Order: sequence, then structure tokens, then C-alpha cells
Amino acid sequence: MVNVQESPKVKREVLEVSSEIMSEAGQFLRRNGFIEILPVIISPITDPLNHSVLDASINYYDGQYSLTKSMIFHKQLAVRVFPKIFTFSPNIRLETEDKKSTGRHLIEFTQLDLEVKDAKRDDILTLVENLFVEVFKDLDKKFGKIIRSTNPHFSIPKIPFERVRYLEALEKYGSDFEAILSKQATEPFWLIDIPIEEREFYDRLDGDGKVLADMDLIYPYGFGEAISGGEREHEYEKILYRMSLKGNDQKSLKWYLDEVKKGIPPSAGCGIGIERLTRFVCNLRHVSEARLFAKVPGSLSI
Amino acid sequence: MVNVQESPKVKREVLEVSSEIMSEAGQFLRRNGFIEILPVIISPITDPLNHSVLDASINYYDGQYSLTKSMIFHKQLAVRVFPKIFTFSPNIRLETEDKKSTGRHLIEFTQLDLEVKDAKRDDILTLVENLFVEVFKDLDKKFGKIIRSTNPHFSIPKIPFERVRYLEALEKYGSDFEAILSKQATEPFWLIDIPIEEREFYDRLDGDGKVLADMDLIYPYGFGEAISGGEREHEYEKILYRMSLKGNDQKSLKWYLDEVKKGIPPSAGCGIGIERLTRFVCNLRHVSEARLFAKVPGSLSI
Repeated sequence: MVNVQESPKVKREVLEVSSEIMSEAGQFLRRNGFIEILPVIISPITDPLNHSVLDASINYYDGQYSLTKSMIFHKQLAVRVFPKIFTFSPNIRLETEDKKSTGRHLIEFTQLDLEVKDAKRDDILTLVENLFVEVFKDLDKKFGKIIRSTNPHFSIPKIPFERVRYLEALEKYGSDFEAILSKQATEPFWLIDIPIEEREFYDRLDGDGKVLADMDLIYPYGFGEAISGGEREHEYEKILYRMSLKGNDQKSLKWYLDEVKKGIPPSAGCGIGIERLTRFVCNLRHVSEARLFAKVPGSLSI
Repeated sequence: MVNVQESPKVKREVLEVSSEIMSEAGQFLRRNGFIEILPVIISPITDPLNHSVLDASINYYDGQYSLTKSMIFHKQLAVRVFPKIFTFSPNIRLETEDKKSTGRHLIEFTQLDLEVKDAKRDDILTLVENLFVEVFKDLDKKFGKIIRSTNPHFSIPKIPFERVRYLEALEKYGSDFEAILSKQATEPFWLIDIPIEEREFYDRLDGDGKVLADMDLIYPYGFGEAISGGEREHEYEKILYRMSLKGNDQKSLKWYLDEVKKGIPPSAGCGIGIERLTRFVCNLRHVSEARLFAKVPGSLSI
């Protein structure tokens, strides 16, 4: 028997907010010199992620295409052609059903995925902070009254956002620090310098050899993780070393490694979950209320 | 041995044009009361199409998800919540390798897919004509010089576009009429009243019971098909009848039929291929030059 998930009722106003987020975020990036590239849904290579999900691949002629878990590798290749790119990238991550009640997991979601050639992590932090301010100002102007009727906390975020070092937070609050800090907070904040064992091989290792030049953005009021990103490894030998630490299979990333050998530029970037941002703005219980045709882990839905 | 396709070199200017097309087309639709919804990449239901392609489906728990060939059914459901919607929808159609040299087929492409509740075909024709004029005017202003350096025919299309009846064209020019007319033309034109055997079950059957209230847009200078669309069947009994004519399996569309039973509104809409539009504007030999990470039928590429 197939476990069938009824589509939750999505409010018209929530769809309007989501649409406006995409419009304003895209236009903000264009004003800042970015171009939009088309998303990639199937490829012989995809993000190995730092946690395991069920396989999502299809056969084509004598080969195999994986469904995109994130566009990380394609973004690294795209900045060879244009230095500032973004895309609204639909990602498939076949999460297991234990993730169905986290409030923030869907097996299909859309990331506003951006990458900047030669950028440092701090450039991305500043860019995203300004993007948030512009998007929230725009939402306030167009939908402020409606949003405040269901979200009493709605406000323009104050920049710069606070920066919290991962290891310091871990020491102070224990392993549940992210949830604790998210609940205490009233403003979004950055979690930076995430240790090597918590992230994928492609986040750039910082000078000390233990933490990465990367970050998560965490929403306040318990809404949790919003964004992941960082500087990227771009040198062949370092990438091989980092893959070996993680146990990533070189064969499955051969297409990527061949391109790295030809040369890819240093870059930094991040992915912003559109459904999670919509959920945060509209103060929704579950991210499935933030889009039409939401797919909750563990069951099939339309 | 996997047949490997080297990614064609995509020019930076072509990417900029493609990005601008998405921006201006999206903003035109927003100015006309549309909202953008998020794309759907996997679903138990997808477009059966009118020609066969290789299977693209994945297993998840006890069920199966198909990769989206078009968002037709989801658009019909979405207009229950908001009357004018669009999305940049990545579609996967695992075409066979005989399609590799048509110049206009990729197995992964993006459609600007739009749908309007209670609309007639003529409403969509007028909307799209105005969208084309606005997009071309915008491109001319921002990239006119660059575009004209490789496309001597670039001009703002004159509206209204000519409307050619499918059966009349077939009678006059024979079965190859579409290619012949596309080569002769110097302006985009509509092919309307496409007969029932040429299209999917969901295009609405017109009064005479033989032709459909639907259309294709055809580019001039031999660039061929640009857009498909039409009014949709929305009544349960008529949909079942049309599916029986086509031999469509009711079981595979059960999720859709269950929603139709609950009621879906009349609507009309279309899908505009972004890569094909970019190819036409930039006068490119093959649609694979119109995007990064292009996937040509019959081989694997990154």
C-alpha cells in the first residue's frame, strides 16, 4: 500500500508572498550584477550531501543520471563563463520519513542558488544580509498588513547579522545548540566556521585545518536553518584530499574531477531555501504550507 | 561504453540574453496579474505527451514518482488557488537519439509555463504576442547591438501574429508544412485548430468534434516550433472520453482524475521554451548553444 499524503491547503496569500520573494530576490541580484542561469535537474554528478538520502537516479542509454540534490558543482563550473550567477534550482532529496515532522523538510524544494567567482565568505554574508533587507522591505510595503495578521514578529532584519562560531556554540549549549539558539533569537544569525566533519568535501578548509570557511544562516523563533554556503575548494589535489577524508567515491564524481583538472576558479556562494523563507515570513507551522504540491518525507503526494 | 557528449561552448552574451528573457518575461506576467509558483519535478502524474520517450521514474517508499515532462496537470490544479500563474519549469523528456540533430531538442529544458483560469485560446494568443513584443523591445534596448551582430533578422515582432489553420496548411503544403512555412516566414505565426490525433487528451475539443481549441507558435527562418498551448478539457466525462480515444491508461493518471472529480476550473495556457527562444533571438545553430549544461538526445553530458 502506498502511503498517500493529502496536499495541505495552501493559502492564496502565502503563494503571493512566495512569488514576491522570488521576484524581489531575483531583481536584487540582477541589480548587483548577477545573471540567472537555467536549473539543472539531471546530471551524472550531484552533491553527495553530508547525510544519506534514498537513491534518485534514472538510466539513459548506457549511462545513469542522478537527480540534482544541489547545483553546487554546476555553479562552480558556471562561474567560469560569468562571474556572478544565480538560479532557482529545484532539488530532490529523498529524505527518510523520520524527517517528516521537523517542520522544514520536503523531498522536493527550490533553492535560490547563487555563486560568485573570486568571492570570500564575508562577501556572501554581506550580499545575503542586504538581499534579506531588500526582500523584507519590499514584502512589508506590498503585504505588510497581511503578513502581520499571522506573524506578529515580522520585521526588517537588522544588519549586520550576529556571527556565532560553531565550536563556541557547541561548547556553551551542547549538541542541541542550533535549536536552542534559534528559539532564543529574535533576529536571523550566522553560524560560521563549521567543522570539517559536519560538511561536504567542497567547503574550503580554512587556515587552521579544522574548520571551514563556510556558514549557515539560522532563523529566529525556532525556525532553524535557512541557508547553507561558503567558500569552495577549487584545487584538484585539495579536493582529492577532502574527498578521501569523507570517503567520497572518486568514480561517481569523475565528470566533476575532470573539469576541476581543466581548472575552475575560486568562488563562494550559498543556497537559500524558498519554502523555508516563505514559512519564516508567513509564520507557518510546516514548510508544506509554503508551496503548492509539497512533498513531505515518507509518503507520496501529487 | 557510455556515449559522452562534450558540453558545447556557450557564449557569455547568450547567457546574458537568456537571463534577460527570463527577467522581462516574468516581470511582464507580474504586471499582468500573474504570480510565480514553484516548479514540480517529481509527481505520481505527468504529461503522457503525444510521442513516446524513454521512461524517467524513480521509486520512493512503496510508490513511484515520474519526472515532469510538463506541468500541465499541476497548472490546472494551481488555478484553483490563484487565477493567473506561471513557473519556469524544468522538464525532462528522455528523447531518443534520432532527435539529436533537429536543432531544437534537449532532454532537459526549461519552459515558461503559464495558465489562466476561465481563459479562452484567444486570450492566450494576445497575452503571448504582447509578451513577445515587450521581451524583444527590452532585449533590443539592452543587447540590440550584440544580438544584431550575429542575427541580422532580429526585430520586434509585429502583432497580431498571423494565424494559420493546421488542416488548411496540411492540404496546401503536405505533411512537411510546418518546416516549409517556418522557412518561408519572416515573422512568428500561430498554427491553430490542431487535429485531435496530433495532440494530447487534455487540449479542449472544439465544437465540430475534430479540431482542438489549441495552438503552436512557429518561429520564422526555419527555427520551427516555439510554444504549445490551448484551452484545456476540465470535465470528468470528457476527459475520460478523450483518454479512451488516445488509449491513455486511467490507472497511471488516477491522482489527476481524483482531482478532476473534485472539480477543476476551465483554463487555457501554454509553455514557452526558454532555450528555443534564446536560440531564435541569438540565431544559434543548435539549442544546445542556448544554455549551460545542455543535454542532447542520445548521449550523457554533465
